[in-house]
Amino acid sequence: MRMYDLIEKKKHGVALSREEIFEMISLYTEEKIPDYQMSALTMAIYFRGMTDEETFALTEAMAKSGDTVDLSRFGDRSVDKHSTGGVGDKTTLIVAPIVAAAGGVVAKMSGRGLGHTGGTVDKLESFPGFRTSLSPEEFADQSERVGLAVIGQSADLAPADKRLYALRDVTATVDSLPLIASSIMSKKLAAGTRSIVLDVKCGSGAFMRTPEDATRLAETMVHIGIAHGKNTAAVITNMDVPLGHAIGNAMEVTEAIEVLRGGGPDDLRTVCLTLATRMIALSCKKSIEEAHKIAEDCLYGGKAYTKFCEWIESQGGDPAYARDPALFGRAAHTGEVCAEEDCYISACNAELIGTAAMILGAGRQTKDSVIDPRAGVLLLKKPGDRVNAGEVIARLFTERAATLDTAADTVRAALTFSDTAIEKQPLIYAVIDNCAVFSKEDPSQ
Amino acid sequence: MRMYDLIEKKKHGVALSREEIFEMISLYTEEKIPDYQMSALTMAIYFRGMTDEETFALTEAMAKSGDTVDLSRFGDRSVDKHSTGGVGDKTTLIVAPIVAAAGGVVAKMSGRGLGHTGGTVDKLESFPGFRTSLSPEEFADQSERVGLAVIGQSADLAPADKRLYALRDVTATVDSLPLIASSIMSKKLAAGTRSIVLDVKCGSGAFMRTPEDATRLAETMVHIGIAHGKNTAAVITNMDVPLGHAIGNAMEVTEAIEVLRGGGPDDLRTVCLTLATRMIALSCKKSIEEAHKIAEDCLYGGKAYTKFCEWIESQGGDPAYARDPALFGRAAHTGEVCAEEDCYISACNAELIGTAAMILGAGRQTKDSVIDPRAGVLLLKKPGDRVNAGEVIARLFTERAATLDTAADTVRAALTFSDTAIEKQPLIYAVIDNCAVFSKEDPSQ
Repeated sequence: MRMYDLIEKKKHGVALSREEIFEMISLYTEEKIPDYQMSALTMAIYFRGMTDEETFALTEAMAKSGDTVDLSRFGDRSVDKHSTGGVGDKTTLIVAPIVAAAGGVVAKMSGRGLGHTGGTVDKLESFPGFRTSLSPEEFADQSERVGLAVIGQSADLAPADKRLYALRDVTATVDSLPLIASSIMSKKLAAGTRSIVLDVKCGSGAFMRTPEDATRLAETMVHIGIAHGKNTAAVITNMDVPLGHAIGNAMEVTEAIEVLRGGGPDDLRTVCLTLATRMIALSCKKSIEEAHKIAEDCLYGGKAYTKFCEWIESQGGDPAYARDPALFGRAAHTGEVCAEEDCYISACNAELIGTAAMILGAGRQTKDSVIDPRAGVLLLKKPGDRVNAGEVIARLFTERAATLDTAADTVRAALTFSDTAIEKQPLIYAVIDNCAVFSKEDPSQ
Repeated sequence: MRMYDLIEKKKHGVALSREEIFEMISLYTEEKIPDYQMSALTMAIYFRGMTDEETFALTEAMAKSGDTVDLSRFGDRSVDKHSTGGVGDKTTLIVAPIVAAAGGVVAKMSGRGLGHTGGTVDKLESFPGFRTSLSPEEFADQSERVGLAVIGQSADLAPADKRLYALRDVTATVDSLPLIASSIMSKKLAAGTRSIVLDVKCGSGAFMRTPEDATRLAETMVHIGIAHGKNTAAVITNMDVPLGHAIGNAMEVTEAIEVLRGGGPDDLRTVCLTLATRMIALSCKKSIEEAHKIAEDCLYGGKAYTKFCEWIESQGGDPAYARDPALFGRAAHTGEVCAEEDCYISACNAELIGTAAMILGAGRQTKDSVIDPRAGVLLLKKPGDRVNAGEVIARLFTERAATLDTAADTVRAALTFSDTAIEKQPLIYAVIDNCAVFSKEDPSQ
């Protein structure tokens, strides 16, 4: 195999063979293919796309390029959830305990965040004492005992994807559907669960801006999962607006606890139940209707909250904080963004709200940034809401008072106002259960 | 300027500004832009193309990335000829003396060949003593005195193009029209002549396979030249078949001398007169009709041959060889390819004939290969010719007897036969004189 020939083939729209893709990924992982050839290929893929067979092969080759996690002891019960990333997305903190309470096993490695707020492990570290690195034995034992363990990505999972993603990130070839799909799914395959539920975000705060694009990505990933023998489902959810009110690590944990206690924002709860339903259906072999009933029972009956407290304590976190989130405390400095006149909020750029949270200290601007767990934005009003002159739309929290003005300006820039009421956008655009796209009348929503 | 943003723009089909292109080429020359970003950009250019303005800016930026030759002392008389490369192309050896005899100044740097046969300087080195590197003073003096000097590319001309071409060569992005055109023209601009005549080859032995593609490339290059204040013309010539009969360095020199003495193959003479006409028209300010008359007079009156001998002697070559090419001698081993039955030759793959010559030792397979000046192929019959069973179609010459069988098989593979006569293809497809495409009835042909 000569890499030159593969670039030339792809440039002319000819599909690469499975053998070519496997050899290429193997050589690239060993640094025997230079980055300048790989970036030319990825740009050709951006323009020419990939067939399903090519995408499947690329995903598998990257999944097998490093370690794979063995979760076979859990049989069909192991299940993973992956979100394509959004602002204020704390669903894992809610969904994982619901599914574990229902009998599924959520044994999950999760990345740290680079961007608006931290990733799930950053959020969990808001709990004093919480350990995000467990030994393989501790990880397996806790998954068995609690049905739930979330740790930082310590194993050498899909190193080919890691190298390729870093290259795409600096050569403007991230936004290729088959490359996004294979990147995500290669890590999910290596992570070893029997079932995978994908939360594909769509809107101004997400990578995919339209429901059509998000659905195409979701379908591709579901096809990849099924082609590799995984039970796979996907939910396409709205990310034009942050999910819930809280954007910021300890603030998001607090909001998740509110939901687990039966309260919290409606949009967040609905998305969590929709995701949990799929995870329970796949891992516990239930119909969608049965799974939805189980998810609601676990949430509203308190079992999910109990499971959450058990989980936090089991990983070394102080359970007092799970019982009384007020212990997280409040950041030293606060600010407000208020309405200037009586009006309706007509739109909210989720990405800019995330940027404001990052400015306040909730996210990492570089790999080495330190996250401030108490910093963030509380977005009290959302598109469709009526506000009166002087009413608080958002509260800002930070340890660094100097950031407040810039963050407030950023929040203001994210908001659009109108004299007339607007119709709210759908929260969930579509659900793909094993490739069948269900309508929005699905009972689980 | 961030290179990432330039890749992103081009990926979406947005034109880069002149300032962006200049800064990019400057940074790339200083190795401040990594190859993996540049190869992603060139692949995006392959798919999206470039506007005329982008192509002009890229050409100028690369032309100015290193040294430029100052030929201003020659005023309007300096003129260069560039061929896009073909098999058996010895036109410079004939055209340059015709133009110099007519009063033009051909002060030319020429590359060495990598491929089928050597480049012009390799061919000139067939003359014992010929010096292909002259000091800048010697080069200028000889150009003044003889009107003709051809040296190897010693100056640091267009280093950005050199680096970019090497990258394109290994990332399958050579075949992009704006990149080809800007690469060629950047070196021509840096070489400093007032006028440029382009011989754009077209067919199985050339980079451009169809007259349409070759014409598009020629038009683009003429536009670039004119945009930069150069008198520019182009001739699109057939390279489905090697030009003349000889493919191999000393053999080509011998054939060039035959033409300069008024004999030699018709196709070679016609192409040379067509090119020389444009060079004389531009450098001596003549009409095409006048220039054609002057070119014929110089060739048939012997002035061009006298100029050739003067040139060779002036650069240290043994003039006895120019007067009696039999002195070049013949390679130690010869072979033949003969017709198996009475038939017509219907086609001849020029590239394969070139490959056969390289196998025999006439060309370089790698940069470090040593050329054997006496090796090569003499193609006696061409498409349209009638051959009888047993008649010699090609003679092979080499110092390495072991290469004869493979070379003969390669020549056979290049030939197609037919029972019936075929119509000969045009030798010259089109002429572009300062952007006006003249018909093939042009009197100079």
